[in-house]
Amino acid sequence: MNNKKKTYCDWVAVDWGTSNMRYWVMHSNEVIHSSRTPFGMVNLDRACYENILVDELDTFLNPSICTPILICGMAGARQGWKEAPYKSVPCKPPELHEAVSVKCKDSRFIVKILPGLKQNRPADIMRGEETQIKGILEKHDRFDGVVCLPGTHTKWVRISAGEVVSFQTFMTGELFSLLSEKSVLKHSIAKEGLDEKIFKSSIEEIISNNKIFAAKVFGLRAESIIKSLSVSDARSRLSGYLIGLELSGSRAYWLGETVFILGEDSISLAYEIGLRSQGVEVIRDLLDMEASLEGLKAIFNLKNGMNIS
Amino acid sequence: MNNKKKTYCDWVAVDWGTSNMRYWVMHSNEVIHSSRTPFGMVNLDRACYENILVDELDTFLNPSICTPILICGMAGARQGWKEAPYKSVPCKPPELHEAVSVKCKDSRFIVKILPGLKQNRPADIMRGEETQIKGILEKHDRFDGVVCLPGTHTKWVRISAGEVVSFQTFMTGELFSLLSEKSVLKHSIAKEGLDEKIFKSSIEEIISNNKIFAAKVFGLRAESIIKSLSVSDARSRLSGYLIGLELSGSRAYWLGETVFILGEDSISLAYEIGLRSQGVEVIRDLLDMEASLEGLKAIFNLKNGMNIS
Repeated sequence: MNNKKKTYCDWVAVDWGTSNMRYWVMHSNEVIHSSRTPFGMVNLDRACYENILVDELDTFLNPSICTPILICGMAGARQGWKEAPYKSVPCKPPELHEAVSVKCKDSRFIVKILPGLKQNRPADIMRGEETQIKGILEKHDRFDGVVCLPGTHTKWVRISAGEVVSFQTFMTGELFSLLSEKSVLKHSIAKEGLDEKIFKSSIEEIISNNKIFAAKVFGLRAESIIKSLSVSDARSRLSGYLIGLELSGSRAYWLGETVFILGEDSISLAYEIGLRSQGVEVIRDLLDMEASLEGLKAIFNLKNGMNIS
Repeated sequence: MNNKKKTYCDWVAVDWGTSNMRYWVMHSNEVIHSSRTPFGMVNLDRACYENILVDELDTFLNPSICTPILICGMAGARQGWKEAPYKSVPCKPPELHEAVSVKCKDSRFIVKILPGLKQNRPADIMRGEETQIKGILEKHDRFDGVVCLPGTHTKWVRISAGEVVSFQTFMTGELFSLLSEKSVLKHSIAKEGLDEKIFKSSIEEIISNNKIFAAKVFGLRAESIIKSLSVSDARSRLSGYLIGLELSGSRAYWLGETVFILGEDSISLAYEIGLRSQGVEVIRDLLDMEASLEGLKAIFNLKNGMNIS
């Protein structure tokens, strides 16, 4: 028998996304356990959410108190667990009192889901990124400027005086996946790698001639057939065309600004290379999951959070 | 017992595409039977092609002679039945003597596969459309100008003095399928329909601001969530954004020209509406499969074709 004193958690932080769910079990603001599960919103019936929390957290929950669980992300979408209506920009990232409560059968925990942000003109939405932005603002106190959050749907966000002023989403990452995995190009594109020189010249090509995008993309297939274009070069060019088109469209966000790019993966690096090639100053010193956790911690605020009900 | 005299065919015309195969059984240049099968190149092993012809044509083949079968399209690709190397533009559509012969086990027929066309700069390729172009040139004698062949990979082709001078392929149709069926938009886009007014204004939006394409596309999702954009309006807008981007990129082809658009389906109609909205004169009076058959008939040329071996 294990003689170690059992550690129950004070609260749990959760980033519940479209395709997976990440959580951090917290004790006195320290992470005592964390995990990433494949139970994303897109694969879940409403009835599953509570069961997943019970399965994952069972041994950490103190049976004699009601432990708060704070969730950001797609669990709050209309088709998620319970809808947490969007806040409208301009506004600060959400606070704890703006979260919606979810009635659970298990009396050991209480669940709070944070709202996302929406913008009316041009119409746009985010869920989860608002919490990462809160985390970035924690780490870079009084940050004023532009944040780029690369991903399936890359977001450009203008921050001023602690508020999200405006934002714009580009479907660049999803277009890259669709074109490289499901289109006629699928045998012409390598699975990974980025040749910086080819990538930068492809960005230039598209920035100087946006309108040729759909022809340039087919050209990769044609060159792979009649000019033996390598799959690795084709990948760097496809990345360059897509990010080049996005950099053209997001110019109003980055021109003359220092841009904070969230993330440490190859996509974030590609955005850094692309922005630097346009003469933009870049800060990139935070993992996206660190930003989620920092944001959830700041919103929860141990002293206040323990009193939620 | 059937007393009707059995009609054997003189030759067979085949358009063997990526996802299906269409053929016409010919007697004295009249079609005595035709069919469309789902046996496209993409689903076939090399060994299957001959068996499919035997299954489909068995009762029409005269056992005492060797019937010519003329094929255009993807059967001639490297990954098809037998590679028919591309002709380089500028050039006329292929002639019968340029087709490659395929050795068959069945002695009742001989197979000839026509080459496609390639262009070195910018790199581009076509297989099948060159035969449709031949058909258009048969129907519109001395046609000089621009042909648009809408489809998964829409082609713009400049024709002069019976030659293909240059061409450019846009992945517009494939992007539409990927975005409307496999992306985050899949629940936001209707299966069919086109509102002409919305379509035309979306074309204008993108033509006047190409670079915002990937943000406009995500905007459809955002508007469907926060502004209850209808699936039918979203479809018209997605069509407009994609065709608008293509019309921007293909302007050098259509500006100041009369454009021949091939096809009678809803995609061809959308291109017609789009081009007319830009003040372009359009001719559209031929089905794409009619063009394939007319092209194959013209290339085969009954008098010459019967002597191929």
